[in-house]
Amino acid sequence: MNWQDHFARRVDNIKPSTIREILKLTRQADMISFAGGLPAPSLFPTKRIKDASNKVLDNEPEKALQYSTTEGYLPLREWIAGTMNQNAESVQIVSGSQQGLDLIAKIFLNKNDKVVVASPTYMGALRAFDVYEVDYLSVECDDDGMLPDSLENALRQKPKIVYVIPNFDNPSGTTMSLERRQALVELARKYNVPIIEDNPYGELRFRGEYLPNLFDLAPEMVIYCSTFSKIMAPGFRLAWIIASPEVLVPINMAKQASDLHTSSFTQMITYEVTKDNFMNEQIAKVRAYYKIQNEAMLAALDSYFPEEITWTKPEGGMFLWLTLAKHLDATALIHDAVAKKVAYVPGEAFFANKSAKNTLRLSYSIASLEQIDSGIKSLSEVFETSLTKV
Amino acid sequence: MNWQDHFARRVDNIKPSTIREILKLTRQADMISFAGGLPAPSLFPTKRIKDASNKVLDNEPEKALQYSTTEGYLPLREWIAGTMNQNAESVQIVSGSQQGLDLIAKIFLNKNDKVVVASPTYMGALRAFDVYEVDYLSVECDDDGMLPDSLENALRQKPKIVYVIPNFDNPSGTTMSLERRQALVELARKYNVPIIEDNPYGELRFRGEYLPNLFDLAPEMVIYCSTFSKIMAPGFRLAWIIASPEVLVPINMAKQASDLHTSSFTQMITYEVTKDNFMNEQIAKVRAYYKIQNEAMLAALDSYFPEEITWTKPEGGMFLWLTLAKHLDATALIHDAVAKKVAYVPGEAFFANKSAKNTLRLSYSIASLEQIDSGIKSLSEVFETSLTKV
Repeated sequence: MNWQDHFARRVDNIKPSTIREILKLTRQADMISFAGGLPAPSLFPTKRIKDASNKVLDNEPEKALQYSTTEGYLPLREWIAGTMNQNAESVQIVSGSQQGLDLIAKIFLNKNDKVVVASPTYMGALRAFDVYEVDYLSVECDDDGMLPDSLENALRQKPKIVYVIPNFDNPSGTTMSLERRQALVELARKYNVPIIEDNPYGELRFRGEYLPNLFDLAPEMVIYCSTFSKIMAPGFRLAWIIASPEVLVPINMAKQASDLHTSSFTQMITYEVTKDNFMNEQIAKVRAYYKIQNEAMLAALDSYFPEEITWTKPEGGMFLWLTLAKHLDATALIHDAVAKKVAYVPGEAFFANKSAKNTLRLSYSIASLEQIDSGIKSLSEVFETSLTKV
Repeated sequence: MNWQDHFARRVDNIKPSTIREILKLTRQADMISFAGGLPAPSLFPTKRIKDASNKVLDNEPEKALQYSTTEGYLPLREWIAGTMNQNAESVQIVSGSQQGLDLIAKIFLNKNDKVVVASPTYMGALRAFDVYEVDYLSVECDDDGMLPDSLENALRQKPKIVYVIPNFDNPSGTTMSLERRQALVELARKYNVPIIEDNPYGELRFRGEYLPNLFDLAPEMVIYCSTFSKIMAPGFRLAWIIASPEVLVPINMAKQASDLHTSSFTQMITYEVTKDNFMNEQIAKVRAYYKIQNEAMLAALDSYFPEEITWTKPEGGMFLWLTLAKHLDATALIHDAVAKKVAYVPGEAFFANKSAKNTLRLSYSIASLEQIDSGIKSLSEVFETSLTKV
């Protein structure tokens, strides 16, 4: 059978993620990886998860191992709702943030609909939306997030949704300022366009002041997504959507058609893990850890990198964003970097439309402090050599 | 915001599952449920799962709790491949069979494509395909499966895929005979249409002879789906697709865009559970249990039901299918049944096109033997009363 002849048109739009291809490159044992978005495994609360797992299997095995409701495990939904002053009816459990994005795309996006995204933006979101054969409107950004003029220009073109990561953006590491949040919400209201607020890193703030979520500013038009992947462990594939119940009705039906429900077992374990304010303790530990990692990377960049190269100074999260001299191509240079046993993700993959090839994403989440120092030193050699090559 | 104005067209095609609505009705504590397709929870290998979970968290927590590959945990893929004489490259792990169907639909089905299904067929499959705005070609069936003439008539209309559950069909409980399997494969070859073989119940044979899978007869054109839900526990949401690697490439990319990957934790636990031939032991236990349940229901039907009502005699699985007198409506009668504290699923929900309203599905998986006897007696009263009403 010639399978190619049988596939749906949307298959032409589904591309493998560049990150995952590069991660394969970086699996060599002695590679220093600034590439992946993996949380530091030393932060996983393994003992707590083990105790919770045993408790669930001792006390409620027939519930944990059976089919359950599409909306998710009620006590866990209540816990999540409590973190946002909502009630459980506003919470849909999903199998990781990526599923949240897929379900949102499924219920909102027709073929050739326009989606507003930051430039650059999270490539996983682009891959989720691509399946629905959409077009993108890219908004220019600075260190405070989307530029209102560029945003309004996009909104004038009748997009279906705006997708944004206001806190410690992946890939840029920037945080949208309060003024920009207010501007975004006002413009979205003016043009009647729903906002998808993706907030996987919100709890990972290690500098600066807490800022209100877009959902807090405009609950009537924001669909909020967050996850246990960065504050507990990604291996559970457990995340959530908070939105108006009117939006959750089709989301819930789409989820039922997509995978019936998320694992009851991992949901019940996670609820046990959250008890007695454990997550506050855990989040404090995660923040403290990434703060040290982040400072080490900023210090190394300051020491080794030439003035021609600039980078963002994140207030939280796991990533920062480098801009090389205009004529350099970070995709071409990845091979020189890998030859020096350092990996990063070329910025190109994070653009919906026109790419800035002189950009790249660095993650400081899993390298040791020594690796951060020596890896940045090696990268500086790669970038300086290529500067002098010109 | 008036959300209705913003949803994609496909939302009009997404309906809530009737089964799940009826299951809500049947949550009353004293209800005898022949409605759901829940496996008997007494069969869950809880101790084995607990030991496996502890082993995984003791030995490889950083792997079990971290992100992992989209294709799935290699040792588990190898184990699955071994059950079908395949290699791991032909196995994609999915988050439950429902996700398998969603991914298959995603890569094959354009709007208005035609999908061939049995009449009746599994409603979860219809819900998965509905999202992609397809049309259905329903094939007439008897106790041996799809009727070749009706099937050929459907295949002549250039469908995109054929969807079928050859073993212990949900909802009909029937098994496709070897001759019909061969006829299906030959016709699918003749008309060049891929077959989706859904085999969640294949291991639950408690009578009759093993028959080869469609995949065994025509591996070049069959996409095979199966699951741990019925042989281990559904709460893990763990299933698989076996197909030509050429098909798995877009399936894998679609899965990456849908949920990145299935929980590494539950995959690693499940691999531990399968070790040392445990699944053979477990499957023998599951078969023996459902055999007794099935025999109890057949005996009760023989005792209490009038001649006007007919039913299938499954060789395995969890369901049988009742046909009432032509003028009766099982959807209308569900309320009388629930008033007598017995629940079933009206047959109507299982038809893609024209429904036979005088049909219903009974599951014998979770009721006790006493409940099976008294529940069937009560149902016989509901159906006899309505017969005399006419």
